[in-house]
Amino acid sequence: MTEENHNEENEKLHIQLQRVITLLNKYKLLQGFVNLQNQVSESLAESSIQKKNLGELQSLLNKLHPADIADLLESLPLEDRLLIWGMVKPEYDGEVLLEASDAVRETLITDMGAHELVAATEQLDADEIADLAPDLPQDVMEDVFRSLPIAEREQLRAAMSYSEDSVGALMDFDVITVRDDVRLEVVLRYLRRLEELPDHTDQLFVVDREEHLKGVLLINRILVSDPDLLVADVMTKEMITLHPDDKAEDAAHAFERYDLVSASIIDHDKKLLGRVTVNVVIDFIRDKAENEALHLAGLREEEDLFAPVLKSVKNRWVWLAINLVTAFIASRVIGLFEDSIEKLVALAALMPIIAGIGGNSGNQTITMIVRALALGQISSGSAWKLISKEIGVSAVNGLIWGAVVGLFTFAIYQNAELGVVMMLAMLLNLLLAALLGVLIPLTLRKLGRDPALGSSVMITAVTDSGGFFIFLSLATLFLL
Amino acid sequence: MTEENHNEENEKLHIQLQRVITLLNKYKLLQGFVNLQNQVSESLAESSIQKKNLGELQSLLNKLHPADIADLLESLPLEDRLLIWGMVKPEYDGEVLLEASDAVRETLITDMGAHELVAATEQLDADEIADLAPDLPQDVMEDVFRSLPIAEREQLRAAMSYSEDSVGALMDFDVITVRDDVRLEVVLRYLRRLEELPDHTDQLFVVDREEHLKGVLLINRILVSDPDLLVADVMTKEMITLHPDDKAEDAAHAFERYDLVSASIIDHDKKLLGRVTVNVVIDFIRDKAENEALHLAGLREEEDLFAPVLKSVKNRWVWLAINLVTAFIASRVIGLFEDSIEKLVALAALMPIIAGIGGNSGNQTITMIVRALALGQISSGSAWKLISKEIGVSAVNGLIWGAVVGLFTFAIYQNAELGVVMMLAMLLNLLLAALLGVLIPLTLRKLGRDPALGSSVMITAVTDSGGFFIFLSLATLFLL
Repeated sequence: MTEENHNEENEKLHIQLQRVITLLNKYKLLQGFVNLQNQVSESLAESSIQKKNLGELQSLLNKLHPADIADLLESLPLEDRLLIWGMVKPEYDGEVLLEASDAVRETLITDMGAHELVAATEQLDADEIADLAPDLPQDVMEDVFRSLPIAEREQLRAAMSYSEDSVGALMDFDVITVRDDVRLEVVLRYLRRLEELPDHTDQLFVVDREEHLKGVLLINRILVSDPDLLVADVMTKEMITLHPDDKAEDAAHAFERYDLVSASIIDHDKKLLGRVTVNVVIDFIRDKAENEALHLAGLREEEDLFAPVLKSVKNRWVWLAINLVTAFIASRVIGLFEDSIEKLVALAALMPIIAGIGGNSGNQTITMIVRALALGQISSGSAWKLISKEIGVSAVNGLIWGAVVGLFTFAIYQNAELGVVMMLAMLLNLLLAALLGVLIPLTLRKLGRDPALGSSVMITAVTDSGGFFIFLSLATLFLL
Repeated sequence: MTEENHNEENEKLHIQLQRVITLLNKYKLLQGFVNLQNQVSESLAESSIQKKNLGELQSLLNKLHPADIADLLESLPLEDRLLIWGMVKPEYDGEVLLEASDAVRETLITDMGAHELVAATEQLDADEIADLAPDLPQDVMEDVFRSLPIAEREQLRAAMSYSEDSVGALMDFDVITVRDDVRLEVVLRYLRRLEELPDHTDQLFVVDREEHLKGVLLINRILVSDPDLLVADVMTKEMITLHPDDKAEDAAHAFERYDLVSASIIDHDKKLLGRVTVNVVIDFIRDKAENEALHLAGLREEEDLFAPVLKSVKNRWVWLAINLVTAFIASRVIGLFEDSIEKLVALAALMPIIAGIGGNSGNQTITMIVRALALGQISSGSAWKLISKEIGVSAVNGLIWGAVVGLFTFAIYQNAELGVVMMLAMLLNLLLAALLGVLIPLTLRKLGRDPALGSSVMITAVTDSGGFFIFLSLATLFLL
């Protein structure tokens, strides 16, 4: 997929993973052989074959981008992971730690000494150190702090003060500022004195003496404009600015909507604090989407693929416990109707159909509504429109699928009344699912909670217990 | 969140939506009043109040970015949507159509005449027209085609030939090319002759006479380098290149991994075809994440929030039908044990607990594995490691939650053997969930299918039917 003209990195990560594993296994095999007969002098471990294996592995690793190394480490079981981690170039350590997932980063940091950790942060900018900070031991952070120049210390302190889901957490400090009363020619000469521009520099920030942001000077405008013009004539005053306390999600929407590469961050006095760049926004969008998928399945956080069993159990138990409670409730609802089931045992076989389809239909509605809420598409006036649409969909589905299950029931049990009860219960449970599929997320939102979390469990609980209750009470009323 | 210095667009979209709706309602109210007493001359509809309402609405709309207008239209019921759509500046029509979701775009296009549609495409580039093409009527596309200059016609034809999930579908043709034997000064003079550079131009592409890509010249390198240097001395030869037939997902990974703003697309002869830019990649990543969430809930495609009922039914029925089949199967499994249930009716109340928790646990495993597969993290050697880890997690969970449900059962039914059977069934169903939670996605992948689709339905089907079978047969064996 990607092709780097000069080296062999046009192979996919998966192929690289297989190669690393092959080399690693060769290495371990020989090492094991050596250990077995360790009466032989240790020098055999350092034998030429072994050196060659190691050399091959090392040179493969040296060619990889830190992001690829992080991915590779995530794909390896703990023991192999630490072996490879020891072989990574020390100057990559910081970058790799940044790129690794939280769970895997933890395993890597545990394996490193305080000295190594401080060295790893030395390659990083203040905003990057702030990202690692929560995972670093207290004493390491103190050392890191002391080793920084004063200006960066201030930046680190600022970066660490913002909450994880705020724009401040996405901020970096790599801004180039210019004044508006100079000619472009001067700006060009100034830039030429820099050895390189920070990544993702698509604009310079125009500020006054007190660092108040007055506009932005787009790099591409500099290139096409007459060098004799003043910055003030070429700069853009209409620009997107963010505040560090804005939600990171809002920044992501702005980047998406207005096709930004970078955006300035200012405080309430319009003083320039830093910027956000698109690469950080992409990572944020991916992480957010992934976290949502994980939460939906009841994984509290991203899990190391090779985490120890007990760690995984801890990551997953809350969800199972909640579902157990809702299952107990559903079970007690059924318990209320044990007499009916005893008289007509077919009810026991049929009731999961009603509950199951209700849950599926309810989750379809929830997914629609949660997405629309996230996009700010639901106005106070449209809630009733949505409810009536969903009720309509459920009514149609209830009649169609109700008829299907009714006929199925009749075919199996030769009992027409039972078929009618099935059909009616299906219709009613789908209507219940539609109504609550709209109301649950809207209510969570109104209470200030995230409708994406919990809506799905709640609707399933309602359609399970509700479905059993509707079906069994209809059956008790009309059949017994 | 965003703040544009010059106008009042620092209000959130949601507030704008409310404002539009308020203005719209005012307008409709008055219009309705006029229609009621339409003996009065039509001119009242054109009265000053009504003109003021319309003017306010129009000026609000004129200030909005096309992406915001698209969002606004998606948030409005069909009737209001078309009213507002009629007020949008014609020169924005094309952009708004591009930004709108497929379902909403359809409603907008249906409302437009052929002439308007052709006019709307005139503001768009060939790659953008290609994105709209599937939704445009045949005769409109023919007109559009004829109205294009020959070069763009070729581009449109090329852009339309790539499949929707390929890199080619993300491609645009806004590349600036230079030769490697000229001085930077010449490049600078050449750029200055252009009125503006294409959006997201962070690099120029260095090609030979036959348009073969030889390297890239980073804009930021131009700025910091001596203008007397040759392009060949400053250009980068190590670069990411994509092929139009690569998977779009792979391009997204490359942008994420290597923090790109743009990347070249070349054919197999290394001839430059076009480029991909980060803004298109962000849209792709968002769409993909959203589509996955929709598919997971069984919505076939993004649905217009205000779609007519029958359209929604069509979007959702497949999933319900599949789930109905699996529910029927589960029902028949229970049917096999009707004699047992008749003898011990508590079984009916308890069985959904076993099935439910099994399904939840299985879905946790599936989510982990599908994610790891998507990231290419699973090697042929690690499958067994993963299975044994998941089995371990399930064993621990089975013992813990099995004990809990066992005690619950004993507390309610005062039947110790029934409690033990519950515990055993819980343990076995969780083990089944773990085993198949790993095997189902791995098998789907091996068969060349997308493991994200269908894994969840399959595991739930297995843990439902399997859970009922395990519990009821254990009960039949040991209790009756």
